Amino acid sequence: MSCSIARSLEVIGEWWTLLILRDAFFGITRFEEFQERLGIARNVLATRLDTLVEHGVLERRCYDEARGRNDYVLTEKGKALWPVLTTIRQWGDKWVVGKGNEAVRMVHTNCGEHTTAALACDHCGETLHRRDVRIVAGPGLEDPDLLPTPTKSRSRP
Amino acid sequence: MSCSIARSLEVIGEWWTLLILRDAFFGITRFEEFQERLGIARNVLATRLDTLVEHGVLERRCYDEARGRNDYVLTEKGKALWPVLTTIRQWGDKWVVGKGNEAVRMVHTNCGEHTTAALACDHCGETLHRRDVRIVAGPGLEDPDLLPTPTKSRSRP
Repeated sequence: MSCSIARSLEVIGEWWTLLILRDAFFGITRFEEFQERLGIARNVLATRLDTLVEHGVLERRCYDEARGRNDYVLTEKGKALWPVLTTIRQWGDKWVVGKGNEAVRMVHTNCGEHTTAALACDHCGETLHRRDVRIVAGPGLEDPDLLPTPTKSRSRP
Repeated sequence: MSCSIARSLEVIGEWWTLLILRDAFFGITRFEEFQERLGIARNVLATRLDTLVEHGVLERRCYDEARGRNDYVLTEKGKALWPVLTTIRQWGDKWVVGKGNEAVRMVHTNCGEHTTAALACDHCGETLHRRDVRIVAGPGLEDPDLLPTPTKSRSRP
């Protein structure tokens, strides 16, 4: 599939993987600490970390050569997942956990306020909602039939 | 877990679920059409659709009472996942599929340009990067030890 949502999910589309990344963004780097925080089976954690390293989302950095111990550190590709984790957290805060039950909040250092990240157009800076954009074919589209076809399948009002 | 990333993944953290939502955002509403586009087993699709309806992400709207046929339509809760799908797609475009291979692109209707959605502070409007925010405890934090502890686990430079 040329769809980059599908292709991304091959890398990150798994429950534990996203929680490992959440903790990596919290600054966790050690196998033992991931294991303790997530309560995940050691073999499952090892597999998920290997996959993330293979895909270049995390990299190993040896901190104890004698014992072969590594830190697992976010690469640029991994750090670039921050908007994904942030939008998932915000959706869960609002629609799953509910207002007033948020485990964490973000403070925008520059303005000093609690912040919720909104999507904005990187061209004009305006806030982006779904209704403000249309999806057009990109250069990698293999099957034009996969593009939105709102007239083919349409709910009755 | 009080973490809303973890709680969100219970709803959307599954490969097929996110692809179903992708197609729902494309305007697909019919079981047959989801099935044909995704090439997913009918029983798997039925289960995923049921789960999304149970969680209030999709709703059934009957379009053929005699045959018991429904459209599956995004609710407000479902539509609120648009930023999640968008940030996943954009990450995949850049880091998995690669520039020049994007299957689709977004055009911002108001400014008329191809757009990439960036995160912005809903308070001051400034673009948000990970380095611009700090994470603080929220009202629902059950275990303060789960907060970022950058001194406990830290990679060597």
